[in-house]
Amino acid sequence: MTTRGGLDLGGTKIQAVVVDDANAVVGEARHPTPTSGGPQDVADAMAAALREAATAAGVETAALGGVGVGSPGAIDTAAGTVGQARNLPDWEGVFPLADALSQLLGTRVALGNDVDVATDAEVVLGAGRGAASLLGVFWGTGVGGGVVLGGRMWRGVGAAGEIGHMVVKQGGARCPCGRRGCMEAYAGRGAMEARARKRHEDGEKTDLFHLMKKHDRPRLTSGIWARALAHEDKLAIELVDDAVEALGTGVASAVNLLDVEVVVLGGGLGLRLGEPYRERIVQAMHPHLFNDDRPPDVRLAELGDLGGAVGAALLVA
Amino acid sequence: MTTRGGLDLGGTKIQAVVVDDANAVVGEARHPTPTSGGPQDVADAMAAALREAATAAGVETAALGGVGVGSPGAIDTAAGTVGQARNLPDWEGVFPLADALSQLLGTRVALGNDVDVATDAEVVLGAGRGAASLLGVFWGTGVGGGVVLGGRMWRGVGAAGEIGHMVVKQGGARCPCGRRGCMEAYAGRGAMEARARKRHEDGEKTDLFHLMKKHDRPRLTSGIWARALAHEDKLAIELVDDAVEALGTGVASAVNLLDVEVVVLGGGLGLRLGEPYRERIVQAMHPHLFNDDRPPDVRLAELGDLGGAVGAALLVA
Repeated sequence: MTTRGGLDLGGTKIQAVVVDDANAVVGEARHPTPTSGGPQDVADAMAAALREAATAAGVETAALGGVGVGSPGAIDTAAGTVGQARNLPDWEGVFPLADALSQLLGTRVALGNDVDVATDAEVVLGAGRGAASLLGVFWGTGVGGGVVLGGRMWRGVGAAGEIGHMVVKQGGARCPCGRRGCMEAYAGRGAMEARARKRHEDGEKTDLFHLMKKHDRPRLTSGIWARALAHEDKLAIELVDDAVEALGTGVASAVNLLDVEVVVLGGGLGLRLGEPYRERIVQAMHPHLFNDDRPPDVRLAELGDLGGAVGAALLVA
Repeated sequence: MTTRGGLDLGGTKIQAVVVDDANAVVGEARHPTPTSGGPQDVADAMAAALREAATAAGVETAALGGVGVGSPGAIDTAAGTVGQARNLPDWEGVFPLADALSQLLGTRVALGNDVDVATDAEVVLGAGRGAASLLGVFWGTGVGGGVVLGGRMWRGVGAAGEIGHMVVKQGGARCPCGRRGCMEAYAGRGAMEARARKRHEDGEKTDLFHLMKKHDRPRLTSGIWARALAHEDKLAIELVDDAVEALGTGVASAVNLLDVEVVVLGGGLGLRLGEPYRERIVQAMHPHLFNDDRPPDVRLAELGDLGGAVGAALLVA
C-alpha cells in the first residue's frame, strides 16, 4: 500500500491528511495557521501538521508517495511557488513552498490552488461524481469558485474561477477586494462580519458579537452565524438573507454563461448552514436562470472540512 | 473547387453567402425575414436568398458542397430542428428546418446556433485567430455570447453563452426576457428602444424617433443610434452610456469566471459604433476585473455583417 499526504492551507487553519490507495483518510491533524512570522514559519507549521497526521497513520513522512498542497494565492505549479497570498502572515513576494516542504518532509511535494483541489475532490470522490460539467462554489470567508468543463478543471490564462468577484450589483457594496458590487461583498463571511460590526457599532442590536465572545472565537465563524440564526437574531438573518440573494444571483449568472450540469456548494458557511440553505440558494437562483425549466442540480459538498486536504492528496495520486 | 453556402437567419434579415475552398465570399444576398406566415415561409425566403447568392457565384445550389445555417432558438443539430425561436413569425413548436431547406436547395444542410457560428467565424477567420480561449460578445437587438475554451466551442448542457442574461444589477431593470437586471436589459438594442420610447412618450425630448422616420426605418437600428449620438442627442447618449456600463460589468464578470485570453466584440451595435466604443467598454470593464493588471485583449469582430453567414458555411467545411 502507498500512502499519500494532503495539506489544505487556509487563512485560519492548516488541515493535514494521510490517505491510502483508495483515498480513504487514515490519519489527520489540524493546526492553526501562524498569525505572525513569515512563509517559512507557515511551512514549518504545515510540516508539523502533516507529521502528526502521518504518525496517526503509522507512517514516516519520507515513506509517503508524495504530498499535495492546496494553497491560496497565485500558484505556479511548475515552479512550486506561492505569491500574493494576502490572507497569510507577511507573505511578501513569491515563496518556494514546494521545495521548503519537500526538505522538511523528505518526499516530493506538488502545489495546487486551494479551490481547485477542493473542487477536484468533489468531482473524483464526492458530490460531483459523474458530472461532465460542474461549478464548485465555496461559501466561506470569501466565495471561491472551481470550474470543471468536459471533465477537466478550467484554469483559463491561470486564474479562472473568481466567481466571488462576479458583479451582482453595479454600484453596490464595497468588497474586501476593493471593488464594488461583487458577490463576495454580500456573501463572503469576511464582508458579512465587517458589515455586522459597523452596524453594531452604529447602535444596531445583535447577539453576534456576544456569541463570539461567549464561545471564545476571534471572529464571526460559521458556527457563530449558525447560532445567531438559531436565536433568530435580526441582523444575522438580514445579512444571511442578503448573502443568499447574492449567491443565487451570481451562481445563476455563471450557469447562464456555462450551462453546467451540477453546482456543488461547499465552504465553511455552506457546509455549516447545510441543506435548508442549499434549498434557499436554489430558490434565489430561479428568477435569474435563463433555462429555468431545467436548472442545474445543486448539491452540498460531501467531503466536508477534509475536502481540501483530500483533494490536495489527489495532486500526487 | 468546391463551393459551400452559408445562411444567417436573423429576426430582421436573412444573410446568404457562397464561399470557396478558402472561405472567401464569392456570392452574397440579403433578404428581409418574413414578418408573417410561419416556418415554411421563412425557409422559402432563406432558400430564395441562397439561390440569389449562388447565382451571383455562378453555381447551382445543388452543386454546393453543403449549406450551413446559423439560427436563433433552440437548435437540435442532430435532428436538424429549430424550436423556441421567439423572434421569428409564428414559430410554434419544433420545425425541421434542415430537411425543409435541403429539399428546396438540393444539397445537405447543417444547423448551428447563430451566435456560435458567428463566434466560430471570428475564431477561424477573424479577430479571434490564434486565441486558445475567447468570449464572443454580440451587441445587437439582444446581447449574445459565444464561449470558446481550449480552442473548442463550449455548449454546456446545450445552451451555454447566455452572457446577455448574466445579472449586472440585482433588482434592476426589466429585461425583454422577463427577468430583472440582466445585462441585456440595459445593453440590448430592443430594451434600449423600449426605454427610449417610454421616456419619449413621457415627454422627454429626443431626436431618435424623428431620425427613425426620416431614414424610413421600422425601428431604432444601430445606424439610427449612431446618428443620434453624432447629433449629441441627450437621451441617446444616456442610454448608450448605460449600455456600455452594463457591458463592461457583465463582460468583466464573465472574464473573472473564465479568465479568457480574448474578447471579440461584434453585433450590429458593436460593429456600427466601432473602435471608440470598444475602448469605452474596455474602460468600463476595468474597475470590475479581478486581474486588472492583465486584462483580456478586447478586439472588434473582423468579419462584419457577413460573419454569421460565413461561420454557418464552416458547419459544412
